[in-house]
Amino acid sequence: MAARSKIFVGTFVHSKTLGELEYLHDTVVAVDGSGKIVAVESNSSADAVSQKLGWTTDEVDVTTTKTAQFFFPGFIDTHLHASQYPNVGIFGNSTLLDWLNTYTFPLEASLKDPAKARKVYSRVIRKTLAHGTTTAAYYATVDVASTNLLADLCLQAGQRALVGRVCMDQLSPAYYRDESPEAALAATRESIAYIESIDPGREIVRPVLTPRFAPSCSAPLMRGLGGLAKERPDLPIQTHISENKNEIALVRELFPPESTGAQDDSYSGVYDAFGLLTDRTILAHGVHLSESEAELIAKRGAKVSHCPCSNSAITSGAARVRWLLEKGVCCGLGTDMSGGYSPSVLEAARLAALVSRHVAMGGDDKAKLTVEEVLYLATRGGAEVVGLQQRVGAFAVGMDWDAQLVGLSTVDAQGEVEGIAEGEEDGNVDVFGWESWPDIVAKWVYNGDDRNTRKVWVKGRLVHERK
Amino acid sequence: MAARSKIFVGTFVHSKTLGELEYLHDTVVAVDGSGKIVAVESNSSADAVSQKLGWTTDEVDVTTTKTAQFFFPGFIDTHLHASQYPNVGIFGNSTLLDWLNTYTFPLEASLKDPAKARKVYSRVIRKTLAHGTTTAAYYATVDVASTNLLADLCLQAGQRALVGRVCMDQLSPAYYRDESPEAALAATRESIAYIESIDPGREIVRPVLTPRFAPSCSAPLMRGLGGLAKERPDLPIQTHISENKNEIALVRELFPPESTGAQDDSYSGVYDAFGLLTDRTILAHGVHLSESEAELIAKRGAKVSHCPCSNSAITSGAARVRWLLEKGVCCGLGTDMSGGYSPSVLEAARLAALVSRHVAMGGDDKAKLTVEEVLYLATRGGAEVVGLQQRVGAFAVGMDWDAQLVGLSTVDAQGEVEGIAEGEEDGNVDVFGWESWPDIVAKWVYNGDDRNTRKVWVKGRLVHERK
Repeated sequence: MAARSKIFVGTFVHSKTLGELEYLHDTVVAVDGSGKIVAVESNSSADAVSQKLGWTTDEVDVTTTKTAQFFFPGFIDTHLHASQYPNVGIFGNSTLLDWLNTYTFPLEASLKDPAKARKVYSRVIRKTLAHGTTTAAYYATVDVASTNLLADLCLQAGQRALVGRVCMDQLSPAYYRDESPEAALAATRESIAYIESIDPGREIVRPVLTPRFAPSCSAPLMRGLGGLAKERPDLPIQTHISENKNEIALVRELFPPESTGAQDDSYSGVYDAFGLLTDRTILAHGVHLSESEAELIAKRGAKVSHCPCSNSAITSGAARVRWLLEKGVCCGLGTDMSGGYSPSVLEAARLAALVSRHVAMGGDDKAKLTVEEVLYLATRGGAEVVGLQQRVGAFAVGMDWDAQLVGLSTVDAQGEVEGIAEGEEDGNVDVFGWESWPDIVAKWVYNGDDRNTRKVWVKGRLVHERK
Repeated sequence: MAARSKIFVGTFVHSKTLGELEYLHDTVVAVDGSGKIVAVESNSSADAVSQKLGWTTDEVDVTTTKTAQFFFPGFIDTHLHASQYPNVGIFGNSTLLDWLNTYTFPLEASLKDPAKARKVYSRVIRKTLAHGTTTAAYYATVDVASTNLLADLCLQAGQRALVGRVCMDQLSPAYYRDESPEAALAATRESIAYIESIDPGREIVRPVLTPRFAPSCSAPLMRGLGGLAKERPDLPIQTHISENKNEIALVRELFPPESTGAQDDSYSGVYDAFGLLTDRTILAHGVHLSESEAELIAKRGAKVSHCPCSNSAITSGAARVRWLLEKGVCCGLGTDMSGGYSPSVLEAARLAALVSRHVAMGGDDKAKLTVEEVLYLATRGGAEVVGLQQRVGAFAVGMDWDAQLVGLSTVDAQGEVEGIAEGEEDGNVDVFGWESWPDIVAKWVYNGDDRNTRKVWVKGRLVHERK
């Protein structure tokens, strides 16, 4: 508990419910040395709250919002491949299955080189932190050593992370796969043990069971991972589901119900038959799920990571988030780099809004997601998807201080940004002065970028600051 | 001819055809004092080209690309409302007709205040220049004085622009419309005369006839504008078409063929009947055009400004760009602020790629636009849309130097960006060092922003520089 206590003063914005943002002005949030929020007081002052907590002024750091600034919960990226980061934007006109073979497997395999892994993983952590991602659910690669390095680097940088060694023992190139189900399970156990050894209290990093997706896992491997999931009910699980129509057909061919004991021939049924569809399971995509699959997922309490950037970029489809939410499925957002090209959860939120409009154009007008809704998915929704809803995603006593300070530009009478030299630009969100707070937040959602994320904290630690 | 001659050295990228980018390495481009390109020489040097042109070294400014930098033609924004800039990102769940009344008309009307107009127009010019927009086809407002101010400010800032006073004399609020067709035509002539007086050679700014869209123009006004278009065959024309299904129904109701003499009840037929569908006409959107409309547009040589950001944001639809191109319709890109939220033509290019994938998901797999194609639309396509294809959009002797210097980040072994202090970020395009040039350009298209636009020139004049 060496860290100093911190007090944050000013405007705080966070999700109250799916449809509602709460705007807390003239508010004080106190964070103790362990990074936990110990007070949220409106219409108060730093001094008053310090006094109440018995903190003396000289042991507390105070951060106050300025004009057009506010504190917002850190973003949760519920699905991304750290190992694919160098390929962002490189996908041509491919779709999932050819994209994997053309672009993805060669790059992932090459990260067996520890120097290359260090370069790539250091960069993706720094980049996502700069965009306000305080929690990330990462896929690494098949390789244990570099997966463990990713966990080390997250811990050092202070980014909360689920780190998964990728399991894949079939239908993958010979140069990049587990040698057998047994080898895959042993490597998985090895990586889990390592990650738990570096952060036994799971304060920052934790392991996650990661069957890549059904097509690349043999039945024995799926069965083994289901067993491990049962043996370790504290471990989260992450995988992909129903991203692409050819993928779904492949799963149906590979796992006929008579071979798995599943009740039907659905993709969800396969994971369920192997004990991998649980309330700790993060399912990326879910673009083409059927009614009965959505119901099964809701029944099992599994979660969906919606990845609109990826789904549009590699032409997978348009996921029906409103429909999933109405079925009772918990949803969050994922950048899914490098199927998705952007490292930003804010961009994922923006694209979730756009893609929902494309779903609406298809005939379901109520499909449209609002600014409030996409920000909920980016924070509280995401926190629930990764099983951390008690700790992060909002500002409340007892939760951790995982937060970002958002700062926007204010325009003067000459059309210049106040406080910035001519020729400098400090982001693309221009506040003219007459906007309401909801309009300001909408401007941020639609034009914000990492320049607007001025500071980022995880568990009370300042992990990024724009200079 | 007071400006100094300029020589640019290094890597140049531009569109050769719709499907092909040309990469010119070790190349020298020489630009004379009037801003015209007078030499493009590959495998040459600044000295050799200077000598050939009879230029002495001390009268020439030389700019050379560094690692991960290249020159690219300036972007052409073929459709945007300068007056709506403060509303970017503010549209809620609205669609076109309610969006106009709720958000748009009140803001546009308020720019009658010259101080407010100066603030807004100065900002939008600076912002779009920072994003590499060297030519913009602007809608101002109904007000003559502030429309003229927009032209003044473009000329001062050096941004090539078509500036249009908006004509609208019906179905608009009483507080914001032309009083009569006659008043609209007189105000239009007044603004044209002013804009031609400040730049008689049309070197930078030029007026453009701007019937807002058919629903807001009476038949006499449309007829009068058609007459003016005939009287002044040198003037471009800009308007909206077929953006939203309710709008199309409204046009059908307002302009039955028996009243206009049109051959059918299509939206395009209305403009055609009034003499406004010409080879100088820029039609924004064209989302829901019929086969016969596309054929008529192609026959008349009118152009389409594709505005993907706007079309998705306010749920208008997904324009079929491949289909338009195959019909022989020339297309460019528009940000359509503030129906579109982004000031960036690069973002419009990115979203054109994404929207084309949504069209592909609807069943037309060849609809997908490549990186090369969206960059063509952003430059050469756009130049043709605004009638400036002889002057801008590519690098060739005889064309003007309207260009941007693009610079990307290079990542070192520690995952830091070379030449940048820790904590600083300089854009989101990370070059790891092993990428091909097409991959580097794809990375720029998908993650680039104004930080990567290091310098911008229009007609040889440096109009923006990142510091």
